[in-house]
Amino acid sequence: MTATLITNIGELTTNVAASDDPCGTLRDAAVLIEGSRIAWAGPAASAPVVEQMVDAAGRAVLPGFVDSHTHLVFGGDRADEFAARMAGQPYAAGGIRTTVAATRAASDDELRRRLAGFVAELHAQGTTTFEIKTGYGLTVHDEARLARLAAEVTPEVTFLGAHVVAAEYADARDEYVELVAGPMLAACAPHAKWVDVFCETGAFTAAESRQVLEAGMTRGLVPRVHGNQLGPGDGVRLAVSLGAASVDHCTYLSDDDVAALAGSSTVATLLPGVEFSTRHPYPDARRLIDAGVTLALASDCNPGTSFTSSMPLMIALAVREMGMTVPEAVWAATAGGAVALRRDDIGHLAPGARADLVVLDAPSRTHLAYRPGVPLVHAVYKDGARL
Amino acid sequence: MTATLITNIGELTTNVAASDDPCGTLRDAAVLIEGSRIAWAGPAASAPVVEQMVDAAGRAVLPGFVDSHTHLVFGGDRADEFAARMAGQPYAAGGIRTTVAATRAASDDELRRRLAGFVAELHAQGTTTFEIKTGYGLTVHDEARLARLAAEVTPEVTFLGAHVVAAEYADARDEYVELVAGPMLAACAPHAKWVDVFCETGAFTAAESRQVLEAGMTRGLVPRVHGNQLGPGDGVRLAVSLGAASVDHCTYLSDDDVAALAGSSTVATLLPGVEFSTRHPYPDARRLIDAGVTLALASDCNPGTSFTSSMPLMIALAVREMGMTVPEAVWAATAGGAVALRRDDIGHLAPGARADLVVLDAPSRTHLAYRPGVPLVHAVYKDGARL
Repeated sequence: MTATLITNIGELTTNVAASDDPCGTLRDAAVLIEGSRIAWAGPAASAPVVEQMVDAAGRAVLPGFVDSHTHLVFGGDRADEFAARMAGQPYAAGGIRTTVAATRAASDDELRRRLAGFVAELHAQGTTTFEIKTGYGLTVHDEARLARLAAEVTPEVTFLGAHVVAAEYADARDEYVELVAGPMLAACAPHAKWVDVFCETGAFTAAESRQVLEAGMTRGLVPRVHGNQLGPGDGVRLAVSLGAASVDHCTYLSDDDVAALAGSSTVATLLPGVEFSTRHPYPDARRLIDAGVTLALASDCNPGTSFTSSMPLMIALAVREMGMTVPEAVWAATAGGAVALRRDDIGHLAPGARADLVVLDAPSRTHLAYRPGVPLVHAVYKDGARL
Repeated sequence: MTATLITNIGELTTNVAASDDPCGTLRDAAVLIEGSRIAWAGPAASAPVVEQMVDAAGRAVLPGFVDSHTHLVFGGDRADEFAARMAGQPYAAGGIRTTVAATRAASDDELRRRLAGFVAELHAQGTTTFEIKTGYGLTVHDEARLARLAAEVTPEVTFLGAHVVAAEYADARDEYVELVAGPMLAACAPHAKWVDVFCETGAFTAAESRQVLEAGMTRGLVPRVHGNQLGPGDGVRLAVSLGAASVDHCTYLSDDDVAALAGSSTVATLLPGVEFSTRHPYPDARRLIDAGVTLALASDCNPGTSFTSSMPLMIALAVREMGMTVPEAVWAATAGGAVALRRDDIGHLAPGARADLVVLDAPSRTHLAYRPGVPLVHAVYKDGARL
C-alpha cells in the first residue's frame, strides 16, 4: 500500500473537533495517506518517516469540499434567462421546464460528456464528493436515465421527480404526483440513495411532498427537502417530521422552524449561489448557528438559479453575506456537507477517513473568503490519489 | 511572421463599436493573429486560409482583461484584519501601514517572487494588461524600489507615494507631502507613467493631492486619483480639473460630480472587489452610465481592502450589485480599462490591435456573470503567444 506524507502544512483543518475549535486546526502539520485513507495527522515534527514525501511549503490543507446539493445532469443552459433576470425580470419556477425540454432532447452521450466536464470542474475547484439530483426528465424514462447517468459519477444520487409538475400534467397534478410516487420512483430507486421534493408555492404542497417522500422511504431512500426558498412554507416542518437528512434553502424561516431544526438531526443546507444569481435575500446563517442548527453549504449548481460549482465562492458569500465566520463556513462546506449526506468517511481528516483533501495556494483557509474568485486550489487528492 | 487563425468562435467580442452594440459582437466568427497583432476579425465563413488553425469549438472569445488598478508589490498579507472586519470591525485606512512595514522588510527578491506569482495568477484569469501602483514603501528608497520592481513586469506603473502619510511623518504631514512631491517623485518618475493620490478624509486633502499631482505632471506623469471611496469628497472634481485619466472608487458622488465626469475625458473606474471585501455600499454604475460617463472595472487587488485579482468576479459583481448589463461590464473590464490607461492598442480586437485575448470555456461572455467563481478561462493569448 502506497504511503505518502504531506508535510510542512502551514495550517491543517482536520475537522476533528477540539473544545473551542470545531475545525480541529493544526499549524506546522503533516498528514499521512496510506492507500485511499488518512493514516495519521499531527505536528510535522512528530510525523512518521515514509519514502514518499510531499512538501506543502507552508500551504493550507483542508478536507475536500462536499457539495451536497447539485443538479448537474441537464442539457442546454439558460444564460439568456439569467441576463433578463439581471435586467429586472423576476424568477419564475417554470423556467425549469426550459431545461426539461433541452434535457429530454439530449442523448445519453451528450449528457455524459457534459457531466464529465462538470466533474472535472468540481475537482479543479476542490470538491471531492458531490450529490446530483434528477429532476429535468419528469417522465419515467427520462428520470431513470438521469438517475442512471448520475450514478455513473457519484454514489450520492437523489431522485427529484417532484422538481416541478411536468408540463404534460399541468391540468392533472394529482396524476403527476401518483406517477412520481409510483412508476417513476420504482424506475429510479435502483440508482438512487435519496428522495427529494421541491416543497414550495408553485411547486408541490406539503401533502404532495409527503406522499412522494414517504413512497421513497418505503423503497429505502432517505428523504431530503427543498423548502422555504421563495417564501415561508411547510418545507422545514415536513423535513423534520420525516427525519430528513437535510432541508435546503431555508431563507424564510419562522422561529418555530428554527426551533424544530435545532431539535432535530436534519441539517439546514444553505445555497448562497442562488441568492447571488437571483438577487433574493440571503438566508440568515447566524440566526441558525446561534440556535444550534447544523449547517451545510452547497452550490445548488443548476442552469436556472445558480450556475456556479464554486465551493470557494460559497464560502466567500457565506462570510460576506450570511454572517458566518470563516471557520464556520469552511466547516459547513466540508464536514457540514458530510453530515447532510450522512457520511462519516468524508469531511474530516482523522485516521480512517478517506484521503480526500485540498491543498490551497495560500497559507490559511481564510484566503478562501479573503481572495474571492481567485482560483486558489493548488492540488486535490481523492481517495489518496492526486487528481 | 507566424499567422494563426482562431476559428469556430461561438461569440466574438471585438469592442469595435457598432451603432447598437458597443461590444461589436460577431457570431460564428474567426480571428487572425499575425505576429503579436490582430490582422483580421470577421465571419468564420470568410476567414483567410492559413496553415495554423485553432478550433475554438464554439467557445466565446473576448479581448484580454485590462486591470487598470492594482497594488501588487507588497509584503505580507492581512488575512487576520479581513477576518476581524468580517466579524464586525470597520475598515481603518491605517491598515495600510501594516503592509508598509511588511513591504519595507521584504527583500527585492522576495517581492519579485511574490510579484511573479501574482502575474501568473492574473494571466490564468485572463488579464493581459495590468497597472501596478507603488504606495507600500513611503520612503524615497522604498517607493523607488517598488516602482522599479513593478516596471519589471508592466509598463503601467503608477507612483502613489501619497497613499497614506508615512507613520514617521504623522505629526509633520506637510513635510511628508513635500517629500512625496519632491525627492520621492524624482526617484520614482523614471520608472513610472502615472501619478496617483488617495484624496480622501484620513488620507490627503484636495490641496495636498493637487500639489502632488501637479508636481508629477511637471515630470511628465499623467494623473489618476483615488477618490470618493469612503464618503463625499473632492476627488472627482480634482481629477476632472486636472484632466486625470481616471478617478477610481466613485462610491459617493454628488450630482455635480456625475455631471463633471460626464463632461470630461476622465474615466470613472469602479472597484467592486473593495465593496465585496469591506461591506461598503457598491457604487451606482447605472447612474454613471445613464449620465454618459465612461466606466472601467478593475480589481484594486491589494492586501487590505480587495485581495482579489479576478476580473471575471468583478464582472459578476458589477452585474449582480451595480446595475450593469453583461455587455457593459465586459466592455468596462476590457475597453474601459484601456481608456483608463489611455491605450489604443489593447481592449479591442480590431486589425492592428495587440493580439491579447481570452478564450472562455463557455459559449458566451454572459457566462462570466452567470457562472460566478467558476474558472472559465480556457486559453489566454498575450501579444499573439498562447500563455
